[in-house]
Amino acid sequence: MDTLEIFGVAGLPEIGPGDDLAGLIVDACALRQRDVVVVTQKIVSKAEDRLEAIDPSDPLGHKPLVERESVRVLRRRGELIISETEHGFVCANAGIDLSNVEKGYAALLPVDSDRSARRIRDGIRGRAGVEVAVIVSDTFGRPWRRGVTDVAIGCAGIRPILDLRGAPDALGREMQVTEVAVVDELAAAAELVMGKASGLPVGVIRGVDPGWFGPGSVAEDLVRAPADDLFR
Amino acid sequence: MDTLEIFGVAGLPEIGPGDDLAGLIVDACALRQRDVVVVTQKIVSKAEDRLEAIDPSDPLGHKPLVERESVRVLRRRGELIISETEHGFVCANAGIDLSNVEKGYAALLPVDSDRSARRIRDGIRGRAGVEVAVIVSDTFGRPWRRGVTDVAIGCAGIRPILDLRGAPDALGREMQVTEVAVVDELAAAAELVMGKASGLPVGVIRGVDPGWFGPGSVAEDLVRAPADDLFR
Repeated sequence: MDTLEIFGVAGLPEIGPGDDLAGLIVDACALRQRDVVVVTQKIVSKAEDRLEAIDPSDPLGHKPLVERESVRVLRRRGELIISETEHGFVCANAGIDLSNVEKGYAALLPVDSDRSARRIRDGIRGRAGVEVAVIVSDTFGRPWRRGVTDVAIGCAGIRPILDLRGAPDALGREMQVTEVAVVDELAAAAELVMGKASGLPVGVIRGVDPGWFGPGSVAEDLVRAPADDLFR
Repeated sequence: MDTLEIFGVAGLPEIGPGDDLAGLIVDACALRQRDVVVVTQKIVSKAEDRLEAIDPSDPLGHKPLVERESVRVLRRRGELIISETEHGFVCANAGIDLSNVEKGYAALLPVDSDRSARRIRDGIRGRAGVEVAVIVSDTFGRPWRRGVTDVAIGCAGIRPILDLRGAPDALGREMQVTEVAVVDELAAAAELVMGKASGLPVGVIRGVDPGWFGPGSVAEDLVRAPADDLFR
């Protein structure tokens, strides 16, 4: 593998309901065949009108939405709720947040982020004639380690898990660690250029191994089933 | 921020006890000021002679080591143990593994990966005259999501957590998500070029925000104290 390049896409307008994300991204940067386009959940939710009005004078005005969007609450501490969403994601506040959203509104997760990613991928193919992969990313905390990182909540055109089962390691032994969550690593890598504060909602990763492209779904391939999960 | 470049370092020899990792890395690639050098735990453990002999005929020959290196077992299922190490890391098998290690040996985590990172950083400064950051990375699973990703287990010259508390978001509101684990995102990004199968044990990230460089420790800044942890 050669050098990976990662850059943020500047110049996108403020996104609103009904906006054509694929068209805006194609206009804002010169995409190439097999780029991986990482789009932050917030603008996907805005384009899909997943905003709900909340009481702007109440700092906990979004909490009823958090309860409604949770199918299982794993932990509560003070105002913090760690819960499982309908999608199977385990995260703080059911993925609902208020940053980079107009005052008086909360942004919910897309209904189906894999479908959102497919739509953007198809739109880019139609407008720019290039076959790219798309990842919808969001910012999740995790147990045991401080700080948040970006992960994939939807994808299109890229296999979420690189399966190395049976492949030999560098010394010819069969590898023990066999399934790498490459879409999560790509989402984390793109966050380095998108940044929480810089406000670039799209990042592009160029030079990704061609073998990683293919069909796949975060919901189906990456979300661990509760029965396989030691922590649910 | 401009484009990030990420590349793997080819041409390193097989590493053994006492090897000078800084010297070997400097010889293998032309490092520049403010590069972030990501070094996989396995070669750090080998250079620091953190290998222990195990019964090569017993596929579970490393399990007594796992018990010894664990200060707290969180979960067991079959042969899998999720435990907390002395460092405070929560991971499978106390971070002990057998891949890319000669048959009959198991690799333990470095005693102090932050110190390992500092040593490599200082060695690179001495030999190449450039000030770089160093991250020691390892591959951890996580609850709720399938697949593993690389995270930082030690660092030098870079702040593990980017603290955005009080910073405004793109719409001028104070951000809710305030602490980004940039060293974990950098470790994940580097894994994309190092690869489990390609056997490149060092990756370089060029173009990282100069403001992220500074003092810091994974053990002190990134490991969440049990009292703050909802899942321990």
